[in-house]
Amino acid sequence: MEGGSAASTPAALPYYVAFSQLLGLTLVAMTGAWLGLYRGGIAWESDLQFNAHPLCMVIGLVFLQGDALLVYRVFRNEAKRTTKVLHGLLHVFALVIALVGLVAVFDYHRKKGYADLYSLHSWCGILVFGLYFVQWLVGFSFFLFPGAPFSLRSRYRPQHIFFGATIFLLSVGTALLGLKEALLFNLGDKYSAFEPEGVLANVLGLLLACFGGAVLYILTRADWKRPSQAEEQALSMDFKTLTEGDSPGSQ
Amino acid sequence: MEGGSAASTPAALPYYVAFSQLLGLTLVAMTGAWLGLYRGGIAWESDLQFNAHPLCMVIGLVFLQGDALLVYRVFRNEAKRTTKVLHGLLHVFALVIALVGLVAVFDYHRKKGYADLYSLHSWCGILVFGLYFVQWLVGFSFFLFPGAPFSLRSRYRPQHIFFGATIFLLSVGTALLGLKEALLFNLGDKYSAFEPEGVLANVLGLLLACFGGAVLYILTRADWKRPSQAEEQALSMDFKTLTEGDSPGSQ
Repeated sequence: MEGGSAASTPAALPYYVAFSQLLGLTLVAMTGAWLGLYRGGIAWESDLQFNAHPLCMVIGLVFLQGDALLVYRVFRNEAKRTTKVLHGLLHVFALVIALVGLVAVFDYHRKKGYADLYSLHSWCGILVFGLYFVQWLVGFSFFLFPGAPFSLRSRYRPQHIFFGATIFLLSVGTALLGLKEALLFNLGDKYSAFEPEGVLANVLGLLLACFGGAVLYILTRADWKRPSQAEEQALSMDFKTLTEGDSPGSQ
Repeated sequence: MEGGSAASTPAALPYYVAFSQLLGLTLVAMTGAWLGLYRGGIAWESDLQFNAHPLCMVIGLVFLQGDALLVYRVFRNEAKRTTKVLHGLLHVFALVIALVGLVAVFDYHRKKGYADLYSLHSWCGILVFGLYFVQWLVGFSFFLFPGAPFSLRSRYRPQHIFFGATIFLLSVGTALLGLKEALLFNLGDKYSAFEPEGVLANVLGLLLACFGGAVLYILTRADWKRPSQAEEQALSMDFKTLTEGDSPGSQ
């Protein structure tokens, strides 16, 4: 169980990561298939603008956000700085795609004269987007922008990890709520007659939950955590030792 | 950060636990208030039988299940066996209450002639209930029923913890889906007019998510984990040392 300090990759990790990617890609493809087969496809300048919303959110706030969390497990032996930049960049892509998804739905509502932000899905969605943006800003200024003291970094790190995982899970939950809303709006009574669209969307919902579970599993397995490297130990990890006057790297 | 080995209770833990309980109790009270004020209350032998479903699920699969997970953080200095029995018992109560909730909805559907198990909420619900029951059975036979070898226990333990937390989060997600379903069925177009019931139920949904987040935070904080006690170390924890021929308790 305590194999975390070895530099090599744990034997089972690549299979779990591959499985999570298979789930994630199936999820994106199935969202596209649902919108294409049953919702008329996607186009910005028409009633189909709404359909950009679920696709952008599944790609950005579910698939890319999930993959950004896995970066530290997958690139275990790269330099920490490279991995950090990749982690930050994936989150930027996710944020931008989610912003497009957000614009799509507000623009569609405006054109149609629909009310905004009345549903539980929309409340959760705005909360998730706001938290995700704040988390990115704080994460950037603590970990990527130079100058944050080691003490602050090491105190904030567990909070960053917890809130990162929580925002991801809340994103998955919000996507489930949105899917449910779309089904009930579009299918109505036909939903209870096991219409193919309803069954497909239910499977999509289970896939969403499974992708969330797979990412969480890889993220939380203690023996799969990224081993801290010699450079990091010397540079930033041994804050306590530094302040107590010992030489860095000893322990 | 490494204060987990001390026998005393971390200073902030009681406040976080108290906050989670305040959230949980408000959640149960608000579910009752929603059903009482807007859904006509609860009665088994009438159309109000359905209303037993959300109340039982919020009490059993959200509040009690969440509290069962916190038992090891709250009762840090009790004997491990006592804490285990309490953990198992709370899960039994949760399972029985959830079973009543399940019977309520199936019975109501049967009387009304409604279709069963067509929605994403129902698929997730059956999955959660099945997983929860299996998790309880496996947990009981590994940890409470005497005779499971130490090696199996220590190998299964991290899986039990991961699946426990995941099933709890899936329960919260399923409750959110059910709440959303009830709102769209009952309010229809009035939902977008910011009807008081809709706003109350949205707040209830946010409370559900917050309770899930609070339990997850207390559960995952590394320095709040239950310290292993001398008795346990001697009895079961040092499996590796035992098999390697050293005396138990050494490390």
